[in-house]
Amino acid sequence: MWGRRHVGLGYRIRIRYHHLRSLLTARFSSTTTMGVTAAGTVDTAARLAKLRRLLKNPENNVKAFVVPSEDQHFSEYPAHSDERRAFISGFNGSAGCAIVTLGGAFLFTDGRYFLQASQQLDSNWKLMKQGLPDVPTWQEFLSKHLEQGTRIGIDPTLISAADAESLQMSLEPRNSELVSLQQNPVDIVWGKDRPIRPRNKVFPLDVKYAGETFQSKLGRLREEIQKKNAVASVVTLLDEVAWLFNLRGTDIDFNPVFFAYAVVTPTEALLFINDVQVQDDVKAFLGSDVQIRPYESFLSSLKELTTSLGASNEKPMLLGDKTSLAVVEAIGGGNSVLVPSPVAAMKAIKNETEIEGFRQCHIRDGAALTRYFAWLEEQLSNGVELNESQAADKLEEFRSELDLFRGLSFTTISSTGPNAAIIHYSPDSADCAIVRKDQAQPGQYLDGTTDVTRTLHFGTPTDEEKRAFTRVLQGHISIDTAVFPTGTTGYLLDVFARRALWQEGWDYRHGTGHGVGHFLNVHEGPQGIGTRIGYNDTPLKAGMTLSNEPGYYADGRYGIRIENIVIVREAKTVNNFGNGYLCFEHVTMCPIQKKLIDLSLLNTQEKEWLDAYHAETLEKIGPLLRNDPRALQWLERECSPV
Amino acid sequence: MWGRRHVGLGYRIRIRYHHLRSLLTARFSSTTTMGVTAAGTVDTAARLAKLRRLLKNPENNVKAFVVPSEDQHFSEYPAHSDERRAFISGFNGSAGCAIVTLGGAFLFTDGRYFLQASQQLDSNWKLMKQGLPDVPTWQEFLSKHLEQGTRIGIDPTLISAADAESLQMSLEPRNSELVSLQQNPVDIVWGKDRPIRPRNKVFPLDVKYAGETFQSKLGRLREEIQKKNAVASVVTLLDEVAWLFNLRGTDIDFNPVFFAYAVVTPTEALLFINDVQVQDDVKAFLGSDVQIRPYESFLSSLKELTTSLGASNEKPMLLGDKTSLAVVEAIGGGNSVLVPSPVAAMKAIKNETEIEGFRQCHIRDGAALTRYFAWLEEQLSNGVELNESQAADKLEEFRSELDLFRGLSFTTISSTGPNAAIIHYSPDSADCAIVRKDQAQPGQYLDGTTDVTRTLHFGTPTDEEKRAFTRVLQGHISIDTAVFPTGTTGYLLDVFARRALWQEGWDYRHGTGHGVGHFLNVHEGPQGIGTRIGYNDTPLKAGMTLSNEPGYYADGRYGIRIENIVIVREAKTVNNFGNGYLCFEHVTMCPIQKKLIDLSLLNTQEKEWLDAYHAETLEKIGPLLRNDPRALQWLERECSPV
Repeated sequence: MWGRRHVGLGYRIRIRYHHLRSLLTARFSSTTTMGVTAAGTVDTAARLAKLRRLLKNPENNVKAFVVPSEDQHFSEYPAHSDERRAFISGFNGSAGCAIVTLGGAFLFTDGRYFLQASQQLDSNWKLMKQGLPDVPTWQEFLSKHLEQGTRIGIDPTLISAADAESLQMSLEPRNSELVSLQQNPVDIVWGKDRPIRPRNKVFPLDVKYAGETFQSKLGRLREEIQKKNAVASVVTLLDEVAWLFNLRGTDIDFNPVFFAYAVVTPTEALLFINDVQVQDDVKAFLGSDVQIRPYESFLSSLKELTTSLGASNEKPMLLGDKTSLAVVEAIGGGNSVLVPSPVAAMKAIKNETEIEGFRQCHIRDGAALTRYFAWLEEQLSNGVELNESQAADKLEEFRSELDLFRGLSFTTISSTGPNAAIIHYSPDSADCAIVRKDQAQPGQYLDGTTDVTRTLHFGTPTDEEKRAFTRVLQGHISIDTAVFPTGTTGYLLDVFARRALWQEGWDYRHGTGHGVGHFLNVHEGPQGIGTRIGYNDTPLKAGMTLSNEPGYYADGRYGIRIENIVIVREAKTVNNFGNGYLCFEHVTMCPIQKKLIDLSLLNTQEKEWLDAYHAETLEKIGPLLRNDPRALQWLERECSPV
Repeated sequence: MWGRRHVGLGYRIRIRYHHLRSLLTARFSSTTTMGVTAAGTVDTAARLAKLRRLLKNPENNVKAFVVPSEDQHFSEYPAHSDERRAFISGFNGSAGCAIVTLGGAFLFTDGRYFLQASQQLDSNWKLMKQGLPDVPTWQEFLSKHLEQGTRIGIDPTLISAADAESLQMSLEPRNSELVSLQQNPVDIVWGKDRPIRPRNKVFPLDVKYAGETFQSKLGRLREEIQKKNAVASVVTLLDEVAWLFNLRGTDIDFNPVFFAYAVVTPTEALLFINDVQVQDDVKAFLGSDVQIRPYESFLSSLKELTTSLGASNEKPMLLGDKTSLAVVEAIGGGNSVLVPSPVAAMKAIKNETEIEGFRQCHIRDGAALTRYFAWLEEQLSNGVELNESQAADKLEEFRSELDLFRGLSFTTISSTGPNAAIIHYSPDSADCAIVRKDQAQPGQYLDGTTDVTRTLHFGTPTDEEKRAFTRVLQGHISIDTAVFPTGTTGYLLDVFARRALWQEGWDYRHGTGHGVGHFLNVHEGPQGIGTRIGYNDTPLKAGMTLSNEPGYYADGRYGIRIENIVIVREAKTVNNFGNGYLCFEHVTMCPIQKKLIDLSLLNTQEKEWLDAYHAETLEKIGPLLRNDPRALQWLERECSPV
């Protein structure tokens, strides 16, 4: 779980300035990531004192308590009401784990957040810089640095059963133990200041966008249940529930999901959701195929289902590998089995309707981006001063004019607080030239989700900047044009993205590609391209979506990333040694700035790729810009051959 | 163990003919691999009957017996006296495992050997085609297909402790068990027909070739022993013993090793070897730093040493991960620990003397290859008919004229039996054009080991042949020119070798690179480039040697491989993001046939690489060909720029 976070793309917008206030970057990403409005320290003394009293209470009687970042659904982006670790520690970066003992408070995080955490933590906290020599992980801290025989409190709904088991095993040599607390004491401390968890109305996603009825999906899941000789499948991840029932919601920023669980048996489908979120239209949509149960009754229902379904070691309940300890405890470890989620595996492979939706929404989104970049360039060359919020709002405005756009359903950047970063442009001063790496918020459309990053330079790039951009582009092209045999994983393809950078002694410390949901979470698994060894467990398959986003970051100076979304397709190779070959189809349509390319580094095939990509972009986006001559002109210039 | 063999390069010479008797290939490789003179079936009825009587004997009392390919040292190429599986089954391919039960006899092998095994096995045997659906591995056969509670006999000196443990665990659910037999019953059946194991004289390798005294190596090993808090290191692999003591021998074909074991303690170094193999010069060389003990006393000495050294769970004996069950049983599992062999890790990284030796012997070897190819071309164009033995003898003749050559110490191909394959050349007939993929026997020189493969076409290549050759060449160049960060493994680099082939829907089913010993085994670990997941455990380090040998095989038509040896070196990159970068230096000097290259597929950098490689080859080899104008002329032609 932690490992996953570290390699992932933990921020949503990241804008770096050349020679300009590089510190802004980190603060900017943190505020948008966690949605907390202000950076800066919080006085945690009273909170900690109250928490420690609760830990000592006889019904708890623990000497330490673990406060992870996760919510009950292991969501990458939790709702504010689930940001317990941020509340208790004051540190609101996306990755970290707090451990409060009777005498101390320890915040564990990784290199991305050392600076931010040191600024946000008050004197009650000790920052534990994971990854540095001799600094334990939080798990090691529990097993090696606490005294023997310590009772360690956890909230079993917030730790995966798999993680809890390995942690428990590491504690055994010291006779310490994990103790599942009945109620999370941080929630008690938080009390009435805690934001209310969203309970927004859900809505059906028409089959013309989903491409498959939820009844058909349930049928396929039931086949999996039968194949695995199980009695039921328990679905606890929010995007899996949303995908399975063709429902969407607005409970979590940027991710069109809603709080719910599901249990599917060979004959029934139970959806655990707050009744206020389900209107009559949804009830009619679900009909008699789905029974709606109260969200809060999930764990107690699981206990009953275990008995009524006769779950056993031979006929277990299927749990996804990210299921919480609380779920396993409710069912009983002997009556359940942790497996790679069958719903995730089904969801990862897009059907032809979803694929066509991906193509179409990326064309529309590309048109909005084109309008935005053309507008931005004009503003800057006119000497207009813009702040980040104004810029982001403009993109949102262009997008909101598009068909099927659902991005405005979610919190936008401007709501996360005023941002004073000013975008300068001084054409006569090399010092103030700007490299702008724009990773837009994912665009959420009914027919797909977009995720795009472009890096633009509004001044005169240096040779190094061009060299770095070109090496990143070569990696991007290398992934885009790869052909590979069935069975190949993203773990193996990853080096194609890095090879050109490596030639220069450059690299980047994040993954190359993540799965992308269909009008769902912009990050989804299990597939991915990157150094995370888990990616080697998932061969890429036709229909999977992935981002292709190599980058390079010259710390404190500039950052580069070029990101397209690609879809895995069958390759039509002349020969067919083995069991077939796969390739990628790119669906993102947005120019790659030629000004930043050192053409002398590109070979003929790479130049041909670039020209073909731009020709395709112009052909597909151009017709949507009839009413915006500025944008069309900009696009035609940017898409001309090299 | 099995996995290793399957992916490896199990043959030594493999020559394929275009449109010409493709069946020869398999037989040819098998005979050279195992050194058995004739293919064809052996009547095993009497052998099996005798073996089964022994299995039923009260002192054994087992209902099945496992006959693997391995010798006591897990040598890739065993001596004839250790080819027990070939003796009992009649199948002499390099990979396979025989299981004899009281009622049946089963030979398990993989796809490379289905044809050969079906031809060689008589009616007493059932061929088990591992890898086909519903065919068990030999391990699965024991645990799932034998009846409950079966006592299964093994020779504990021929199975690794790690494999025995996992096998034992898989047997437990059926209450079956592995039984270590006191004496291998196959040896008793073989009786006086069994070849005598070689006991040839060993000789010291001067420090001017080894680059480090054996005393220094022992010192470094003792540091490892101390670091691991152990009492001793037990060395059981022949190349590890040879490397550690700077000794070489001639007991096994093509590999300059000798039968021996070693135990190193903080104060002593014990070499277990037959006394007749150690002459006075070697005794003087080893001096008082090494005690010589009888080879046969190894296991009983281990028992004594366990007591005298006080080996225990806290202070164990270090065993390499390929140590036999017999060794673990002698020491006691609680007093030993299986680790990745520290000697293998030390040996893998060549010192500067060894590296310079690699360079020099490859230049000399390249000169011999050049003379051979020039001669061969002339013979063929003169219409001379040659058989394979004559051709191989000529190469051996050219090599034997070189300084420091030690190849003739070993069995040569011509001694493995008459080979009737005739090399034709008919310039006027496209049907008889020849693609000749020449993987020469590894050249053994005092200053290094060579391993080279070239593919030559003596007629007019087809477009497909050129396309395939060019794609293989692009993969070869991609590996050769790769720059990669410290920590990168050969598992990750492997895709660079395949990418160009994949674009065509082509691939090859073997590894891309293996480690190469210094005047030692031509295949050594732990490093390698390939799809074997174990290669992902060994980051490449400066000083490691590797082969770079992508290929392509159009079954029954032609085969292509281009193999150079490369050495991992530190890369001098302009930048240094992270902890340094590595690259490869090629040491093999031999032209790559331009006639087979489709230049339209190469980009500028690839063409430049080719010209630079040929210029370097001409420059380094040319001066050695002063007395062979034919060869020099051939070389100049082959090395001219494209």
